[in-house]
Amino acid sequence: MPAPKGEGTLITTVMNNEIKIFCPATIANISCGFDVLGVALDSVGDEMVLRKTKEKGIRITKIEGQDLPLETDKNVAGASGLAFLDACSYDGGFEIEIYKNIKAGSGIGSSAASSAGAVWAMNELLNKPFSIHELVPFAMQGERLASGVAHADNVAPALFGGFTLVRSYDPLDVIPIPSPDALYATVIHPQIEIKTSDSRKILKTNISLENGIKQWGNVGGLVAGLFKNDYDLIGRSLEDHIIEPIRSILIPGFDDVKSAAINTGALGCGISGSGPSIFAFSKGENIAKKVAQAMKEVYENIEVDYEIHISKINTEGIREMAP
Amino acid sequence: MPAPKGEGTLITTVMNNEIKIFCPATIANISCGFDVLGVALDSVGDEMVLRKTKEKGIRITKIEGQDLPLETDKNVAGASGLAFLDACSYDGGFEIEIYKNIKAGSGIGSSAASSAGAVWAMNELLNKPFSIHELVPFAMQGERLASGVAHADNVAPALFGGFTLVRSYDPLDVIPIPSPDALYATVIHPQIEIKTSDSRKILKTNISLENGIKQWGNVGGLVAGLFKNDYDLIGRSLEDHIIEPIRSILIPGFDDVKSAAINTGALGCGISGSGPSIFAFSKGENIAKKVAQAMKEVYENIEVDYEIHISKINTEGIREMAP
Repeated sequence: MPAPKGEGTLITTVMNNEIKIFCPATIANISCGFDVLGVALDSVGDEMVLRKTKEKGIRITKIEGQDLPLETDKNVAGASGLAFLDACSYDGGFEIEIYKNIKAGSGIGSSAASSAGAVWAMNELLNKPFSIHELVPFAMQGERLASGVAHADNVAPALFGGFTLVRSYDPLDVIPIPSPDALYATVIHPQIEIKTSDSRKILKTNISLENGIKQWGNVGGLVAGLFKNDYDLIGRSLEDHIIEPIRSILIPGFDDVKSAAINTGALGCGISGSGPSIFAFSKGENIAKKVAQAMKEVYENIEVDYEIHISKINTEGIREMAP
Repeated sequence: MPAPKGEGTLITTVMNNEIKIFCPATIANISCGFDVLGVALDSVGDEMVLRKTKEKGIRITKIEGQDLPLETDKNVAGASGLAFLDACSYDGGFEIEIYKNIKAGSGIGSSAASSAGAVWAMNELLNKPFSIHELVPFAMQGERLASGVAHADNVAPALFGGFTLVRSYDPLDVIPIPSPDALYATVIHPQIEIKTSDSRKILKTNISLENGIKQWGNVGGLVAGLFKNDYDLIGRSLEDHIIEPIRSILIPGFDDVKSAAINTGALGCGISGSGPSIFAFSKGENIAKKVAQAMKEVYENIEVDYEIHISKINTEGIREMAP
């Protein structure tokens, strides 16, 4: 006689010593929400396999797709994993394999995918000693290693899915925000590298109160638009008077890509994270595809290599994959 | 035989040559939302009577409760009314009577109540040639006369009711925001006068990016909390790292009033508009009353005269009253 379903599931979970996961790419900042807003993508991301070991500590046993350090304390998945291990009473360790699809320095949360993925998978394998909220600070330790700043605007949407708002860092307060079903992102990644740490250095430490007012008006508008399923309001709120005018200088063809996206029907367009990737939001996959074509043409004309992604919003965050 | 209900209503509206209205007091800024957020109160406000006249133009025929100019172009209701008249094809005029309960300079939208009330009532008497959105710029002309700045963060909630976000001034983009039913405001008005124009002068024209990030995180949190009916999130978001530290210096006992409110169970507490009134939000009328008592005690101890108001959120805005 088969065991009752609930009981069977429980045994499976407890017995699981290995998990394979999908770790989504993420867009941080989202024009108006510098350092506070982020969103997870559905069709772009890394894969990781984590395995429980009797041996304590964390070993990165394989990295494919990118040239990244295998040393635990130099790898973002290792750093976030060590923070996780420090906080729990588990007396074994983990092996990690990382299959990178998201390029480092692309501005779509490459380090966040690995940092968040490691702690999410460990939490699953130990039967969820921590809530998703509690995983965020562990994942932020990977971000600290990657960029020198323990920011949460990529790891939060990777963990929660959908849009997230980091209302406050001290204390950490992450708010999941809903979004309309037909919202699609188009992301173009010009094949140049900008380090997050460099792109932070060029920012000014002061801003005008006038631009601040515009920025928090737009953050309020974007959050309201997401709750109301109001695509036009989402689009109108995708303005950035503070960061984009400075950082866009580092991105070849930015203004032309943005104009092309908007003229093709995108709701709005801006820098993904610290760049160089550029994102646009559209209502529906059809427009998102046309926007991709328009963005491509700009880079083909100026002979910049690129990768392009079209994706729904990922509403579940990191997820388990079939082995 | 009585006329069908719809038809009867129509005739009444068309025939109406006089209207009596309630114009709510409003709290602008709401801690984190300087210049963009506002909310209407339910139990505090002015009354106005407007009457159509064959004579063109606007005459203020009576003002009770405050010593304010009767000259049309020097009175905020007159200024907003003239902007309304300029934009419509009506070929008569209006008489206005104003019964002020909201003190000028109190920081709870005294000028906005009159500016918004005038244009709302005129619009009703002419059978709504304008939408509520379209009335906002007319009402802003009264604010320009009152403070030198055509701000919308008081007139928008007076017109729409509830919470409003002024996402942008150019172009003007006002977004109504819902709020949970049990949200109450307590407002204490120390009897000192601060002119809006003076309280703007002491602000700095630059802010740190760090404080800007906190501010737009909190605006996002407050808007999300209002949509989610999440009282705790509303409370956590009522922080102001930019304006309150400067303006609160002008308000006697501010820190003590704020501590007393929070310690008594208020969700949050801050400066109403440009002050000197101080508002607190609470979940439920009982806590709002206790907060009022705690605030009063502070001003009684330091011997500052005060007025105090306890009010639900007004969700309909300006409303017609029985004649």
